[in-house]
Amino acid sequence: MKAVVLVSGGMDSCVTAAIARKEHEAEELHFLHVNYGQRTEKRELKAFHDIADFYGVPAERRLVCSIAHLSQIGGSSLTDPSIPVSEADLDNPGIPTSYVPFRNAHFLSIAVSWAEVCGAKRIYIGAVYEDSSGYPDCRPEYYAAFNELIRLGTACGDIRVETPIIGLTKAQIVQRGLELGAPFHLTWSCYRNEEVACGTCDSCALRLRGFEVAGVPDPLPYVVRPHYG
Amino acid sequence: MKAVVLVSGGMDSCVTAAIARKEHEAEELHFLHVNYGQRTEKRELKAFHDIADFYGVPAERRLVCSIAHLSQIGGSSLTDPSIPVSEADLDNPGIPTSYVPFRNAHFLSIAVSWAEVCGAKRIYIGAVYEDSSGYPDCRPEYYAAFNELIRLGTACGDIRVETPIIGLTKAQIVQRGLELGAPFHLTWSCYRNEEVACGTCDSCALRLRGFEVAGVPDPLPYVVRPHYG
Repeated sequence: MKAVVLVSGGMDSCVTAAIARKEHEAEELHFLHVNYGQRTEKRELKAFHDIADFYGVPAERRLVCSIAHLSQIGGSSLTDPSIPVSEADLDNPGIPTSYVPFRNAHFLSIAVSWAEVCGAKRIYIGAVYEDSSGYPDCRPEYYAAFNELIRLGTACGDIRVETPIIGLTKAQIVQRGLELGAPFHLTWSCYRNEEVACGTCDSCALRLRGFEVAGVPDPLPYVVRPHYG
Repeated sequence: MKAVVLVSGGMDSCVTAAIARKEHEAEELHFLHVNYGQRTEKRELKAFHDIADFYGVPAERRLVCSIAHLSQIGGSSLTDPSIPVSEADLDNPGIPTSYVPFRNAHFLSIAVSWAEVCGAKRIYIGAVYEDSSGYPDCRPEYYAAFNELIRLGTACGDIRVETPIIGLTKAQIVQRGLELGAPFHLTWSCYRNEEVACGTCDSCALRLRGFEVAGVPDPLPYVVRPHYG
């Protein structure tokens, strides 16, 4: 069964790709990457291609889309240069400035359109809810609603979104990735920098805490490595 | 209350804009147009701006997005030049070649992101189900599911999609537009041509039948005007 995997290039999507690879044959994998005007777009795209190379996904099964509208619309520190990327505050349950309004619906819509045309019946997305930044479009209920939308809004009706790591902590994601041989060294998570990860944005903080709790070193270079554990 | 109106430039979105104008103040209206690589993109964009001018929507409340991925993905006669636009067959209940896989989810996602940033609480879309081409993403249940998705997937949770003409026939849409003074002469519906409407594609056929049944002349020029009534 063919599958479309959303691969941003971060650790979550990398482990999700590893899980998709375990559940599907290599030749069934289709990798999708979306540039949406985020600050670290170039570095993430490199990570996408490196991970696709690692899993042997050829060019004709990679789709790279560039959408300008999320940065046209703004409202997030990831897409609007006038809003600074805030320092991580893992104890604060609010929605951080990095929230891109309704972002995942754009990604999933592209994935569903592609799946309908290429005949894929599964879409994998590395959404994480338990140990995350609190984005509303990472909740399990959101994906249940999206699956209902697909059932009603496609010609075939039987495509399903899978969120295999949604209930895992970052430490569990690191562990799962290690078990499956996921190429963490090829990934990129930092919201702020493209060469050496900052270590203090939300995404770096969650990642570093995950590796720390899992008790393994993160292979990426960091400007600073605070302890978040 | 601010509202985002999806304005493709066709008669359905024009009447929907007229309804939105009736329900909101002129200065609350935000008009959104999406170019997605469809054949008649240029002509539709002109119709969008003409209708926006008609309703006094200034540049800062118009958003025009161009998305390349629907034509990258293909699968529709509207976005893939190798698939011909089929002749209308209004008695055949199948999904025509003009179906663009999961298209409306892309449009609505952009509308929701914009609404979240500009503070709009209503999104108007001119989806028509009863008297339509049978696209799955025009069903009322699809919009109910989308509203659930918005409730779960946005920070604010209280944006709602309105489909004021979904249950109307094309003739009723023409009537409603006439009552509200909708500028039909500024619209464009043909899937095939950009100067003189073909008169025989699905979209022309549905439109011509609507005007015919309503008993009023369609102000647009047509290559041929078959009777579909």
